[in-house]
Amino acid sequence: MNQFVVQNVTIIDGKRIIPDGFVQVKDKWIVAVGSEWMDNHEECECIDGQGKILMPGLVNTHGHTPMTLLRGISDDLPLERWLKEKIWPAEAALDEETAAAGTALALVEMLRAGTTCFADMYHLNREGTALLTEESGMKASLSRGMIAFGSKEAQREKLNEAVTYAKACDASSSGRLRGAIFPHSPYTCSLHFLQEAKAAADVSSLPFQIHIAETRKEVREYEKEQGKRPIAHLMEKGILSNGSLAVHSVHVNKAEISALSHAGVHVSHNPQSNLKLGSGIAPLPQMLNENIPVSLGTDSAASNNTLDLFVEMRQAAMIHKGNEERAEVTNAQEIVNMATYTGAQTLGFPRAGLIKEGYEADFILIDTRQPHLTPQLNGYGALVYAASGRDVTDVFVAGCALMRDRRLLTLDEEKIRKEAALAHEKWKAAQ
Amino acid sequence: MNQFVVQNVTIIDGKRIIPDGFVQVKDKWIVAVGSEWMDNHEECECIDGQGKILMPGLVNTHGHTPMTLLRGISDDLPLERWLKEKIWPAEAALDEETAAAGTALALVEMLRAGTTCFADMYHLNREGTALLTEESGMKASLSRGMIAFGSKEAQREKLNEAVTYAKACDASSSGRLRGAIFPHSPYTCSLHFLQEAKAAADVSSLPFQIHIAETRKEVREYEKEQGKRPIAHLMEKGILSNGSLAVHSVHVNKAEISALSHAGVHVSHNPQSNLKLGSGIAPLPQMLNENIPVSLGTDSAASNNTLDLFVEMRQAAMIHKGNEERAEVTNAQEIVNMATYTGAQTLGFPRAGLIKEGYEADFILIDTRQPHLTPQLNGYGALVYAASGRDVTDVFVAGCALMRDRRLLTLDEEKIRKEAALAHEKWKAAQ
Ligand SMILES: [Zn+2]
Ligand SMILES: [Zn+2]
Repeated sequence: MNQFVVQNVTIIDGKRIIPDGFVQVKDKWIVAVGSEWMDNHEECECIDGQGKILMPGLVNTHGHTPMTLLRGISDDLPLERWLKEKIWPAEAALDEETAAAGTALALVEMLRAGTTCFADMYHLNREGTALLTEESGMKASLSRGMIAFGSKEAQREKLNEAVTYAKACDASSSGRLRGAIFPHSPYTCSLHFLQEAKAAADVSSLPFQIHIAETRKEVREYEKEQGKRPIAHLMEKGILSNGSLAVHSVHVNKAEISALSHAGVHVSHNPQSNLKLGSGIAPLPQMLNENIPVSLGTDSAASNNTLDLFVEMRQAAMIHKGNEERAEVTNAQEIVNMATYTGAQTLGFPRAGLIKEGYEADFILIDTRQPHLTPQLNGYGALVYAASGRDVTDVFVAGCALMRDRRLLTLDEEKIRKEAALAHEKWKAAQ
Repeated sequence: MNQFVVQNVTIIDGKRIIPDGFVQVKDKWIVAVGSEWMDNHEECECIDGQGKILMPGLVNTHGHTPMTLLRGISDDLPLERWLKEKIWPAEAALDEETAAAGTALALVEMLRAGTTCFADMYHLNREGTALLTEESGMKASLSRGMIAFGSKEAQREKLNEAVTYAKACDASSSGRLRGAIFPHSPYTCSLHFLQEAKAAADVSSLPFQIHIAETRKEVREYEKEQGKRPIAHLMEKGILSNGSLAVHSVHVNKAEISALSHAGVHVSHNPQSNLKLGSGIAPLPQMLNENIPVSLGTDSAASNNTLDLFVEMRQAAMIHKGNEERAEVTNAQEIVNMATYTGAQTLGFPRAGLIKEGYEADFILIDTRQPHLTPQLNGYGALVYAASGRDVTDVFVAGCALMRDRRLLTLDEEKIRKEAALAHEKWKAAQ
């Protein structure tokens, strides 16, 4: 049986810090956590955590993995021009094979930066993505994204595909996959289609995710057409309900925050993407004050331009302080909790995101013996304000080592990087 | 004579990109730059830049090096409480020896992240800092900071010290040091003292630097006492004039921006520090529109919490897009120019900051063969939106190698990191 102990390590999760602690793993579970490891003379591998922090693996609650191939494609453009002039034509030139190369690159990038669980919405290479995620040892919530243009027929077919795919993910033998239903947005899907998608999700007990209230323009135009703001309207129609994930939620007013909170809707906060596309600054402190389960997402590499949740944590902590001119509106512990525990709950992994007996052994090690992490006065602060994905040395998911000493064990990094470069050439030629 | 060529490298500075180019160095100068290196059969070391970007060394125009020892001391507190409850008592417990350890740590951290030139304002270990900077091979603008509390006598003594120190730096044999006169701020120095400091700077042709308009409260209280806003008032009094450096300049109005521009005042934009302390968001796009020479600074590690100018570049590009909800208000090329060319001009190094014949050979190499830098569609975007200080492999200043393959050649990193940890213990005991 797989069993090992990490000892002499600073343990930090969203709830507490244990200096000089230990974590014992059996099979895929954390079976003991404490501050003094009593060697029980069982045969058991010991990992020395001296000089390191052990924290829960990071959870990325929103992204589009194939779009790593479009990293940097249109920097410094606003969302609408970014989407219409650059991203949509570029995406039209992606195919199953290039998408697969982009997804593999994303998995390598995320894993190296300490992400153990991620959400991925896209319309290409869905089976391949599920397979590769299984092979990688990571956890994921996968969805076949839907833009509901075209005939009723075509729309119904997409939805059927999406449901079939999500159910297959949910039924994965490893138990590391979840499925979700993800219509793109209220501005690319009719209200009728959103209602159908939500009904289909409910029938199969699948979570519902959607991009919403990302830009001021989206909200304004929706309001003009429908007479209501998008979040308010979708909640009224029951499309957003308990456990749904509202991605972005940048332009939400007080009443909407209160409604999201009462309904138990989750939010994926993507600060880097929202800044880079000029979408705005979401009212994170207000959402947290109302106890909305807000987690962090990178969105795609085309609007970020990396998939490093440490960058996202730092940004989520920083920007609201400056925007509200109140340094106390965010705090590092809360941010760590968002990026770990809340994220895991949001993506459907209730026993992940904490370093605690009875939780799955999804954790990472961070080497603090580096100038920018010296001295170390505050563990949460070190993680949020100073560490980066590059400081992660080891990654474990469900008790399995996926990276040791910065070497990936389940993915062939060199090969994937080269294939991504080739796929990128192929994509360019297809433009 | 020192001479070498870096070839097969993507050259990027604030003005242009040369794919597959070369840079030839003789002594401390760049003597040729181009896209095809003709081997001239001279005896000449060749450095292969395959897969790398070569860019000017980054210039950090504001900081306080000893405060690396206070990294994380008071995260999530606003500036005033941060300063009065935490930083000032903590600083009172620093001495020459602990300050020296903090400065050494800062130099290691900056060098590893590709910073070749930095500003440092502090009141402890000034001679030691000048010596260590010389030893490290880096460039710097150094000042003996002044808070003008205490008797007239004591104030005059501080100012004399500051002038003597700045002149000694200016006269450094290496030519890599500059001196500056840096009274802390309008809220810690009387107007009279600022006038004396400015007069002393002018007499000795030393640049004048000051923290100003950092918080809304500072501006409001100054206005209440003096009847004018601080920047407007100091400009009217001639205290801020051509070549002066206004650090922070967060709360500046249109008239002040216009006045700064006409007077030729430089600004050091410190977005991470301004966010973290809840000070606010400076009007960077407006200042750049008025052609104010705005450069980037990290401020101290106590309010950042790292000294990585790549983080600062990314933040400077990101935050204004989100704040103004217009992605086009900043662009990556302009940001690179701020962090290199403008910074060098601001700190008094007119022949630095570009990869150009006749400029000093201050440049760094960045390894792009990494997942988060693959593919590479846009050189400026890669540097600003995806790279981090951790991607810098090599650093050259005035033609000398200070880091090769991530190994420091002039500073003993291990020793410095351990001494910093010890100094931190000593500081804690003195509290
Ligand atoms: Zn998205
Ligand atoms: Zn400062």
